Amino acid sequence: MDKITLAHGSGGKMMHELINSLFMKEFDNKILAEKKDSAIVKVGKKKIAFTTDSYVVNPIFFPGGDIGNLAIYGTVNDLSVCGAKPLFVSLAMIIEEGLDKTILRRIAASVKTAAKRAGVQIVTGDTKVVEKGSCDKIFINTSGIGEVFYEDLSIDAIKPGDVVIVSGGIGEHAISVLSKREGISFKTNVKSDSAPLNDLIGKVLKVSSGVRFMRDPTRGGLATTLNEITEGRSFGIEIYEKDIPVTEGVRQACELLGFDPLYLACEGRAILVVSAEDSGKVISAMRKNELGKSAKIIGSVSREYKGKVCLNTLSGGKRLAGMLSGEQLPRIC
Amino acid sequence: MDKITLAHGSGGKMMHELINSLFMKEFDNKILAEKKDSAIVKVGKKKIAFTTDSYVVNPIFFPGGDIGNLAIYGTVNDLSVCGAKPLFVSLAMIIEEGLDKTILRRIAASVKTAAKRAGVQIVTGDTKVVEKGSCDKIFINTSGIGEVFYEDLSIDAIKPGDVVIVSGGIGEHAISVLSKREGISFKTNVKSDSAPLNDLIGKVLKVSSGVRFMRDPTRGGLATTLNEITEGRSFGIEIYEKDIPVTEGVRQACELLGFDPLYLACEGRAILVVSAEDSGKVISAMRKNELGKSAKIIGSVSREYKGKVCLNTLSGGKRLAGMLSGEQLPRIC
Repeated sequence: MDKITLAHGSGGKMMHELINSLFMKEFDNKILAEKKDSAIVKVGKKKIAFTTDSYVVNPIFFPGGDIGNLAIYGTVNDLSVCGAKPLFVSLAMIIEEGLDKTILRRIAASVKTAAKRAGVQIVTGDTKVVEKGSCDKIFINTSGIGEVFYEDLSIDAIKPGDVVIVSGGIGEHAISVLSKREGISFKTNVKSDSAPLNDLIGKVLKVSSGVRFMRDPTRGGLATTLNEITEGRSFGIEIYEKDIPVTEGVRQACELLGFDPLYLACEGRAILVVSAEDSGKVISAMRKNELGKSAKIIGSVSREYKGKVCLNTLSGGKRLAGMLSGEQLPRIC
Repeated sequence: MDKITLAHGSGGKMMHELINSLFMKEFDNKILAEKKDSAIVKVGKKKIAFTTDSYVVNPIFFPGGDIGNLAIYGTVNDLSVCGAKPLFVSLAMIIEEGLDKTILRRIAASVKTAAKRAGVQIVTGDTKVVEKGSCDKIFINTSGIGEVFYEDLSIDAIKPGDVVIVSGGIGEHAISVLSKREGISFKTNVKSDSAPLNDLIGKVLKVSSGVRFMRDPTRGGLATTLNEITEGRSFGIEIYEKDIPVTEGVRQACELLGFDPLYLACEGRAILVVSAEDSGKVISAMRKNELGKSAKIIGSVSREYKGKVCLNTLSGGKRLAGMLSGEQLPRIC
């Protein structure tokens, strides 16, 4: 098994192992080792957040979004959850020979609208074209830089007793993409949650200084993201299935396809770990925002289950919810 | 012809038309409109250079380099020619399912060595895997940020009488890649010039405040890059074929393949437009550096040939050297 498999890109266990064994080791440095959604770097005395993501989503248009706005919002969100105001975004495209220019035009228009909505500027870019068959339609990389305005967001700041909040229903992005995928397609009214979180997060950080850490649960979903937070730590996280917002449409699709919503990607949701004291005002600030109106406290940080995530199931049982293992859904973002 | 063709990614005329008609129009802003190799942005009061490039080079290993160090040096050079000290680089990979891990390990090691040589840190990254056949082995995007230390590099600063300098032999990167490409491969001892220019450029900018503008001639080569400088301007550039450094190996390969070295990509060369007054000290500073030892004055900025590039040929004639039109060499970087 010395080949790269789809599971190495799924956001789960195998991806973490690959990244840890190869890249973290080779490029060993403190900033990278933080494993945040953005790197926090200093240029002179200025603290800047810097992030990158490539988008290979298939299909490129799906209910609620497309590869263009996904690429903008994904990068905006990686900056936002690190306490930064997203400012500038780069746009690099790898295009397959033969792509219709009308498709490219639609994507460019979508990028423009998304950038406007998120309040960022596209300031630099790159266009590569490869032979037919050497890529699948179009891949987009966006990188972004933002100004850090809320410091000290860190897993190290998390304490037992803190609460865990999710900003809205989970799994909607993954289900919407799958519903249009060749070979799987099924009927659903689920739309991608793809959206820019900078406004929502900005409002939360204005009312509370008790936010310890944030992350957006993309590949690997809620459960994997929570495991990234607890991994190797002296605390665990306990969550309650009954409190996790899952829409009826996502629930039905999961039953149909045999998926667990806990492992499905979101593209417009944030997970926040907040002091218990501030949780009320954080939730109320979130619910005032369109993107946070279904925000819920789904659990808390515990001295038990060290390094793990414990799920209290609907049926009253308890089980560990590990990191996504193997491949669930390739090319979801 | 409403399809994307390989020529749209070749760095030449069609790529410029696509970028102008689509992206420049949609994402219209002053920073993007500068069309520099990096965007110069302000975060607070700090001036930062920000750039992105995707690398789809085929083959991924070639004499003198590989996709890993190419990706680092390319981004370092885009920052350097904008008067910035390269600091932080992101690394986003799109990997084809089935790629040998040993190949990935070789690339990671090469990235590490290149980052060390260039003095930059890899601080953030992304790993995507797509199904076999959905990309060709591996594509890498690197974005980078640097601290601007030499301001006012701009095409607007260029004046008739300024001289044009190239830091070394042209076309070596393109020939080295082609020599190993399936279906073309031929024998040559030409190695890619792929190298980080930050040290060389730092030394030049220390001795001279007369540097007006710099660019690294990648896709489209020297002639296309010079046209990017003159396009729409009230000055032209006149260059002398006899003064343009072309190694014997590149010359032979060009004869064999029917290429014009003026249009072949370099990955470790800079073009500098410098005041005539400072040209002597710039050349002598460059020649003291390993990467600048073949630096030459190849021409000057002229009131004639407005918006164009005029080549004085070896045989004593004059002809306009336009932008690369159509496709010459796909996937050269």
